Order: sequence, then C-alpha cells, then structure tokens
Amino acid sequence: MEKSKVVIIGTGFVGMSYAYALLNQGAVEEIVLIDIDQRKAEGEAMDLNHGLAFAPRKMSIKSGSYEDTKDAGLVVITAGVNQKEGESRIDLLNRNAKIMQDVVRQVMEYKYDGIILVATNPVDILTYVAWKASGLSSSRVIGSGTSLDSARLRYEISQYIHIDVRNIHAYILGEHGDSEFVCWSNAYVGGKPFRDVIESMPEQIKFSDLNEIYKDVKNAAHDIISRKKATYYGIGMALVRITSAIFNNENRIIPISVYNDGVYDIEKDLYIGLPAVLNREGVHHIVKLKLDETETKNLKVSASILRSSIDLIKFDA
Amino acid sequence: MEKSKVVIIGTGFVGMSYAYALLNQGAVEEIVLIDIDQRKAEGEAMDLNHGLAFAPRKMSIKSGSYEDTKDAGLVVITAGVNQKEGESRIDLLNRNAKIMQDVVRQVMEYKYDGIILVATNPVDILTYVAWKASGLSSSRVIGSGTSLDSARLRYEISQYIHIDVRNIHAYILGEHGDSEFVCWSNAYVGGKPFRDVIESMPEQIKFSDLNEIYKDVKNAAHDIISRKKATYYGIGMALVRITSAIFNNENRIIPISVYNDGVYDIEKDLYIGLPAVLNREGVHHIVKLKLDETETKNLKVSASILRSSIDLIKFDA
Amino acid sequence: MEKSKVVIIGTGFVGMSYAYALLNQGAVEEIVLIDIDQRKAEGEAMDLNHGLAFAPRKMSIKSGSYEDTKDAGLVVITAGVNQKEGESRIDLLNRNAKIMQDVVRQVMEYKYDGIILVATNPVDILTYVAWKASGLSSSRVIGSGTSLDSARLRYEISQYIHIDVRNIHAYILGEHGDSEFVCWSNAYVGGKPFRDVIESMPEQIKFSDLNEIYKDVKNAAHDIISRKKATYYGIGMALVRITSAIFNNENRIIPISVYNDGVYDIEKDLYIGLPAVLNREGVHHIVKLKLDETETKNLKVSASILRSSIDLIKFDA
Amino acid sequence: MEKSKVVIIGTGFVGMSYAYALLNQGAVEEIVLIDIDQRKAEGEAMDLNHGLAFAPRKMSIKSGSYEDTKDAGLVVITAGVNQKEGESRIDLLNRNAKIMQDVVRQVMEYKYDGIILVATNPVDILTYVAWKASGLSSSRVIGSGTSLDSARLRYEISQYIHIDVRNIHAYILGEHGDSEFVCWSNAYVGGKPFRDVIESMPEQIKFSDLNEIYKDVKNAAHDIISRKKATYYGIGMALVRITSAIFNNENRIIPISVYNDGVYDIEKDLYIGLPAVLNREGVHHIVKLKLDETETKNLKVSASILRSSIDLIKFDA
Repeated sequence: MEKSKVVIIGTGFVGMSYAYALLNQGAVEEIVLIDIDQRKAEGEAMDLNHGLAFAPRKMSIKSGSYEDTKDAGLVVITAGVNQKEGESRIDLLNRNAKIMQDVVRQVMEYKYDGIILVATNPVDILTYVAWKASGLSSSRVIGSGTSLDSARLRYEISQYIHIDVRNIHAYILGEHGDSEFVCWSNAYVGGKPFRDVIESMPEQIKFSDLNEIYKDVKNAAHDIISRKKATYYGIGMALVRITSAIFNNENRIIPISVYNDGVYDIEKDLYIGLPAVLNREGVHHIVKLKLDETETKNLKVSASILRSSIDLIKFDA
Repeated sequence: MEKSKVVIIGTGFVGMSYAYALLNQGAVEEIVLIDIDQRKAEGEAMDLNHGLAFAPRKMSIKSGSYEDTKDAGLVVITAGVNQKEGESRIDLLNRNAKIMQDVVRQVMEYKYDGIILVATNPVDILTYVAWKASGLSSSRVIGSGTSLDSARLRYEISQYIHIDVRNIHAYILGEHGDSEFVCWSNAYVGGKPFRDVIESMPEQIKFSDLNEIYKDVKNAAHDIISRKKATYYGIGMALVRITSAIFNNENRIIPISVYNDGVYDIEKDLYIGLPAVLNREGVHHIVKLKLDETETKNLKVSASILRSSIDLIKFDA
Repeated sequence: MEKSKVVIIGTGFVGMSYAYALLNQGAVEEIVLIDIDQRKAEGEAMDLNHGLAFAPRKMSIKSGSYEDTKDAGLVVITAGVNQKEGESRIDLLNRNAKIMQDVVRQVMEYKYDGIILVATNPVDILTYVAWKASGLSSSRVIGSGTSLDSARLRYEISQYIHIDVRNIHAYILGEHGDSEFVCWSNAYVGGKPFRDVIESMPEQIKFSDLNEIYKDVKNAAHDIISRKKATYYGIGMALVRITSAIFNNENRIIPISVYNDGVYDIEKDLYIGLPAVLNREGVHHIVKLKLDETETKNLKVSASILRSSIDLIKFDA
Repeated sequence: MEKSKVVIIGTGFVGMSYAYALLNQGAVEEIVLIDIDQRKAEGEAMDLNHGLAFAPRKMSIKSGSYEDTKDAGLVVITAGVNQKEGESRIDLLNRNAKIMQDVVRQVMEYKYDGIILVATNPVDILTYVAWKASGLSSSRVIGSGTSLDSARLRYEISQYIHIDVRNIHAYILGEHGDSEFVCWSNAYVGGKPFRDVIESMPEQIKFSDLNEIYKDVKNAAHDIISRKKATYYGIGMALVRITSAIFNNENRIIPISVYNDGVYDIEKDLYIGLPAVLNREGVHHIVKLKLDETETKNLKVSASILRSSIDLIKFDA
C-alpha cells in the first residue's frame, strides 16, 4: 500500500465533506469518487478539481469505477439509503445491509487487499456486514464508530474548562448510538485524572456538568439535523484523521468500530466502538482499558444491543 | 483589523464550503455565520464545531448576528435567491440587488470599516450594489470575480501540458460570465510566454487546444450544475485564497472584481474582473496589463454589458 | 499583544535554531534578532531572509535593537556565556546571571509588557533572575524548563512501545538538570495509566525498561554534546511549541519553568519545571497533579537544590 | 521510488540546515545522515529526533551508511572541504572533485537508481563530476545551481516593489558564481513583463534599482559570510523546495544546475543553471527561454568559464 490512494464509495454529503476535507488538508495523493449516480460523481470530481489550484499539494481527483480499488490503500464507504415513509427500522437496516454487501462484493472482485472504512449508519452493524462480505481479516475492516462522538466530547469539555482540546483525553465507547457512554474512569486533562480535576476546582466544574456536556454530545446529531437536515462536516474531518493514521502508519489510538475478539469480556463476533491502535495495516490491536463497574455494565449492554441487531440481518448466501 | 475574524452572510453551499475550507486550512481565528434562517446558521456552526478537534489550529466558530461585524476584518456575502419559475432575469437581478442592499445596510449600521467580499452572482453587478449601499471606499469592497475562472484555467492547462499549476500564469478578465476572456498576451509558463511555449512544442500543444481548454473552463459551471445541481467547492477555496491575501497582508495579485476608476480605458463606474494587488486594506491598486487589440475590444464589450446591467438595477433611495 | 512578533536575544545555535524553526513552520508574523555582536545578528537575518521565498507564509525578519521589544508579544532570551577554563560553576552562574539582568533591564527600558521566555541554562535559576529583574508579574516570565525533556521522554517511549507520540502523556518535573524526575503516577498511553500498560504487556515492556529510557533522556544532552559539541535542534522546536501556545491563545498544558507560589508544597519563591496552562497572557495557572510519595520527595529535593543555587546569586541593586 | 527517503551525505551546516528544514516542514518520511565523522552524524540524528515530538508528521531520522541509499529516492551531497592556507583554487577544486567521486562511487556500489542532488560548491562543476562518477542518466543528477540566487532575487524585488514574492517571476541563469546573470527579458510581476512594470511606475522603480538589487543578491553570500562565517539557512530551504518537487512529482520549473545537451546553443557537456521541469524521475526537460542578445552572450560566457574549470579536473580512471 505505497500510494496514498482513497476510493470513496457514495458521494452524498458525508462522502463529499470527507473528500473536500482531504483536498483542503492535502491529506492523500489520490481520490477516486464512485456513486451509483455516475454523473453526480463526475460533477463532484469536477467541482473538487477546480479547487486544486488552491490546495496545499498536488493531488489527483477523479470519478471512477470499482476497478480503481485495485491499487488503493483505503476504501471508504458512505453509501446508504434513508428511511422511506412507513418503512420499519429493520427493513431500512436490511436495505442498507444489502447495499453494503453489494458494494463490498464489487470491491472484492478486484482482489482488494487494503483497508475498508465504513461510515454509513448504523455504523457498527454495517461494518460487521462489510467485514463478512469482504472475507478480509477483521483488522482490515473498520467503522467510524465513536471517533466523532469522542472528539465532540473532548471539544465540549475543552470549551467548558478552557483547556486546549489536545490536552483533553476521553473516549466514548460502545455502539455509535443510544447505548454509547463516556469512559470517565480513563479520562484525563493533561496528566490529571478527571476525578481529580473536578475535586480541585469545585466552583468551576461538577461531575453533573460533565454529564450534561455528554448528553449534549449524544444529542448533537439530532440537534444539528433538526436545524440543517443532516450532519456531515464533523464526520468528514473525523474520517480524515483516521485516514492519516493509516497512511502515515502512525500507530495512533483512535476510538473506532472494531471487531471484538474477546479483548473485552462482552458478546463476541460483533463490531463496537473501542480504542484501537491504527496503522498502515489497519487495526494493530485493541487497547484494553480497565473499566469501572458501571462502564463494564454499559459496554455489555451496548454489545447485546448490537448483537441483537446483527441477528436481524439477512445475509446473502 | 488585528484579529482575523470573518463574518459569513448566507449559509448556503457556497458560504458553508468556504467556512469548511477555512476550518480545514486553519485560515482564520474566528468565523461567525449569519443566515436569514437563524436555526440553519446555528446547525451549521454546530456541525463545523465538531470538526474543530481535528483542525490544524484553535479557532472560534459560532452563529451570530450583524452586530458581530463590528470587530471583523472581513465580511463575505454569499446570500442570494434562485430564479423562480417564470421569473425574468431582470426581476431576479433586482430581487438579489434588494437583498444585497438590505444585507449591506445591516452591516453598516455597526459602523463596519473592514473589507466586504461579495460572492453572490451576478457577482460584478452585485459587488457594485454592495459598494453603493456601503458608502465605503471602493478599495474596501470587492467581488470574487474571475478568481475561480482563472484558477480553473490554470489547472486545466497544467494538466494538459504536464507542468505544475504554480508555474502557469494566466488571467481570465472581464465579467464573471459569458463575456469573460483569457488574456493570452500576458500568459506564461515559468518565465516563458505562452506563444513561445506553443511554438516550441508544436506536436504537443496548439493554440486551438488552449482555446478548447478555455471553453471547457467557461462551461465548467454549467457542466457541474447539470451533474450536481450547484457548484461550490472550487469557489469556497478561491474565497479562502482571497481571505489569506487580505489577513496576511500579502500584497498578492489576484484577478477579482474591482471598481474600475479609469485604470483601464473602458466604461467607468462599474465592477469588473481585473488583476489587483490585495492586502489588509483591501485593493492596493489594479494591475494595468498591456492588452492586445482583441483583448482590449473584449474588455470594452464586457464592461458595456456590465454597465447595461447596472442601469437596470433599481437602487433604494 | 495582537501582532505575533518575537524578539530573540542571543543568536547562538539555540536562538538561531528556534528562529529557523519559526520560519520553516510559519509560526509568527515577525522575528527580530538581537545579539551583542550586531553584525552576526545582521548576517543571521540575511541568511534567514533568503529562505523566505520558500516559507509557508509571509513573515518579516530583521536584526534590531532593544527598542524593537516595544510592540513584541514575546521576548525569547537565549543569550549566555560558556564556562571558561578554570572557572567555578558558581562564577559561571553569576556571570550568566549578570548578563540576564543586563538583558532584561534593557528590555524593560521600553516598558515591555509582553511575555519573557528564558532558554539559557541553568534555565530555572536564570528565569528567576529574569523575573526579578523585569518587575513583571510571574505569570509573564517563564523558562523552557522540562518541556524538551518531557518531549524526548514521550518520543523514546513512543518508539519503544510502537504507539504514536501524540498518545503518550508523561511529564518530567523539577529542575531542568540532574534532579529532574518522571511523574510516572500521572503517565498514560491513550487513556490507559502506564502501570496498567506495563501489567498488560509484561513480555513487551517492563518498568525497568522505562527507567532505562528515562536515563537515556537525562543523558541525551550529554550524549549529543559529546558527538556534536552542542545541542540545539530539539530545544529550537520546543520553543516553537511554547510560542504557538502563547500566540494562538491555546490554554495548552506544557511542562515549563514556572514560579511556584505554593501550588505545590515545596520551597516557595523559585522557578521549577511544572505543567502549566499557557495562553496569550502567559501562565494561566499551574496544574496541580497528585504525586505519589517518591515523586513528592523528588520534587522537594529538586526545589531545595534550586533554592540553594538562587541563594548563591549576586543580584544587582 | 515510492517511499520519500532522503540520504544526506555531509552533516555540515548546509546538510543539517536542510535536514532541520525537512523536519520542520514534515517534507519526507525518512532521513538518513552520513558523515565521514560517524559520531557527528549520530549526534545530529539524536538532536533532530528530539524535535520529532513537535514535528508536523511522523518521520524516521537516523544516522546510517551508504547501504541506506539502496531504497532511497534522493541522495543529497553536501560534503566538501574548505580552502587550506596557501592552497590554490585549482588544488581545492581537485580535492573536492576527489571527495565527490569517492562519495558517488560508494553510493553506486548499492546499485542506486534514484536522484542525486549536489549542493557542494562550485556546484556546477561538482555536479558534473558526480554525474560522470555515477554512470546515471544526466536527468537523474542535478545541482542546486541558481535556485537560491533566483529566490533571493525574487524576494528582494518583492520587498522593493511591495508585491508578494509568489507573484515575482525571475530567473538567475548560468554558473552559480560570478558569471551568473538575471534573465530580465523573461521576468514578470503577476502577468506583467518587468519592462512594462518599470515603465508604468517610473517614480517608484528604475531598471538601475533592479540591477542594484541583483548586485546585492550576487554579493549576498559574501556579505553573510563576512558576518557569520558561512551561509546555510537559505540553501537549506531551497533544497527542500527541490526535494518536494521531486517526491510530489510536481513537474515544477526550478532553476537548477542541469546537464546542457544542446537545448541552449552554448558549450555542451557541462552542468549549468537553467530552468528545468522536475518530477519523480528527475529532470523531465530543460525549459528553453528566448534570451535577448546580452543574455545570450552572458550565458555563453558563463558556459565557457564552466567548461574551462571542468578541463582542469583530474578524473579518476
């Protein structure tokens, strides 16, 4: 995987915000856009190309086909459909699972051996579907998971206590969805555990405030959607971070959706949001945190919910 | 104008692509979003804020009101409406001119003395409207003009002759619209005039090819719109370039929409696309190029067209 | 302190490596070089200026005089002399203290009210001297302290356990010198305490290895000096990090030499390496970590050593 | 040449300023330092490594041996000796030519097939020597030539006429030395020929001023050396620019020392400063400018001088 080439499947707002962020940050050498509406992919590539004269580095951007995955290091899947009027959650899930399987199979036809990053929701379940359909090692298939949620949390805390976001260390774990939770027992400001931070500045910060912050984070997607119908800028930049960790071979710890193989004592054979070390080969290993009692319970609950959803999926033969 | 604070008025795709590019490039310290739909502006600010944890530098992003222009160095106006079914071009123009006047007056209520950059189309005419409504010196009111067109041209030529875009120097001048034209007599590759370039590699490049390239550039917006309904990524990055030239006090030459005060021998009292030296105070001066006969004629024609359009505008008392 | 203007006093290898790093990173708008050998400062400014055509942003670089500190936001002092043959450590210290007082007084003649950052060794003591001579609030006078030592440690650990350096959180505290020590009780990898990290991978990492790493860090300066006579590249970049935290108003936590006012229960009225929150106003506050018994003792010892050295200084009337 | 790996031979000030600039700009993935004084190379690598925690990207930096050139894309040679008391210019040249041949042969022992970039002076002659010793295609062996001189000129003009350096296009051609000259007939500000610029602002700029500027540029090295004994920061950054053009496959036009194969009607079989298109394969082609009569003569003279010097070199069998 020498060339930093990304194939983006799905040119909706998430896919395109990711592509535009890659362009503005000069994060990769090559971007290929694939969409079921090929003319849309063409138009998007044209629009991005016109920005190239202002980009920080030389890049190649074009619309393409599944064959372009052959020499790519990363395939990012953002394709998916929205709920139809009257459609049940399960039917919607199965429609998206079907699309995911179709997409991944078309990728695998070209003997793809890079990394697959899934961003379509429900991301933990669809990453599982993508992995199954790919036949790749689970270290090579990941989902965006709680990467954005964690960043949102860190940012909100940073604003609240007036400390640089790069000094705030905290993970949101579990399902990217209602059952996710903050791992406060492993949260720090600089080198200082959160609990000490709260104790040392009782007038300025309370644990209850932090939980308010967390609720805001959890409701953020809903709040944004109620205002602008969709949310895509934040996730676009979260995907760039994951992309850089991979192509720069960073061994960076990021909370993403990974395959739980027993590292944590929860249901096995599922994808769930956990901190993992990412490099050019994908997931090097999952970081095993010591969780407190509540967190342990929360993670188990979250895993059970995900397991139940997976059981509802109809997998193609 | 010490703080690099930008107020963006209009959070449509152009305004938001500009804001997202600013965020990804870390180009300013502060962004304020204003929209007639205040909840949309709020949602957009929230979505951008969630990307801050991944941005190259600390920034402040929020939705706000006209009062926020008070200490801003730059106000970028992207607000405008689209053609209604059955609406004439003139009626549309007057609706947008009305909006522009309203917006600018609200800005000026706070004794704004920074720079106004207009990106709403038809950009040359609406920049004129904005300038009139502002009462500011013409050096402080500019439009995006042919900055993106010129970049598109440079990029396409770069692709065609396989030379880095930073070595291609060429301007598209005149109206940002049908009457624009390439100033080939002042176009260079490295230090070599374009005409010499063509002479020296007759098998690889012909002047007719270049004109094809230019036609493609001129039709680019149309081609993109036919594919994705709108065009906004390229212009978003062109606006970032103009922004940086201003806040970094670069004295950089960029082809933008500027007030012609007689530097070129064309109709006066209008805004038109010409190369200008930009710094923290706005337009330092317009660069006077020696045009050949055809170019001189083209610029006059373009100016006449703009003058006629301005004459159709109903200015508020 | 609106303009990001730095005045560097002393154009030896440390001062110049810092200036060159600022230039290559485009970290500030303005650099002024001052040296007792004015022609050397001129030559250095000329050499840097020739790189400007290749720099990431427009900057102004020149040699100057103390008057240039008037509108600067940061004065970085790297001036100092080396041990003469037969000179005692105390005599050398007093010679450097004398220089520091002279330099700071010349700065204060122009009613300087920005931040002073001292990098001359022994840095904790000379920062104290600079503070005394300045009459400024202690929040405005800081030393490079253990910032580089901590970065070296983080880097070495990162290499050893193959995790990105940005996920390694560990501070070296105390005197920048022999009595410094690692605060292992507040060290983390991602969100995981170091002690858990060691427990969870006993074949790969032992605490004794970490202590070896630390000893290497402590001996690093000596090892480099034995090979190239001096050490300056690392410290140059550490100073850029501190500079950015200040000018970008980051509220970033960095272990630097700060005035201990009783936040830690050690000798008062001295400068010592502790984590502090840095922004445009200097030190916002010192971060109070819970130290374990050994660390508490180590910090006290380090403080006593510094106190004794300060007592040896002859302060000018 | 997939990995962006540079081997730097010679860790004097030029080599190290180049390495430090690469580090601060995050310009490559891997740097290897080689020096005849191996312990110095080790110390330099250690010092650079300590800055890695503050660098914009992950990089690998180490001291090494000629075997490290095997998978490198670029070898940069800065090794050389200074004039000894009483040594003639010719004897010095032959000593440096001997060193160059030794170095290049050691590189070629590992079947090196990347690009060689020479920065030791007299650079045009020693690049020729390196090429001869390498047996590589002349497109793969280049010298820093007049790249820095041209940048210095552009910067000085930019300062003088208050226009951004990125809008100043001008080359210094010929020998990097006394016989070099400005190619004014192909110099531009934005899209405007220099002669028009001068005509249009007679009060502000005269051609005689420009020639003064040029003389200053020509004397710059001397002026700096008289003040700080050597000059290395500017050249370090010029070498980074050449490096990026190569590794990013930019097809960028840069004035460097290239092998004249008859593109210009001057003496053949020599290296001389001319604008060339650089990419991952080295020199794609030399850009043929139309020179005026004086420039044509100047280039011929410069070539003759270089030819005479080459004739003095003793080549090893």
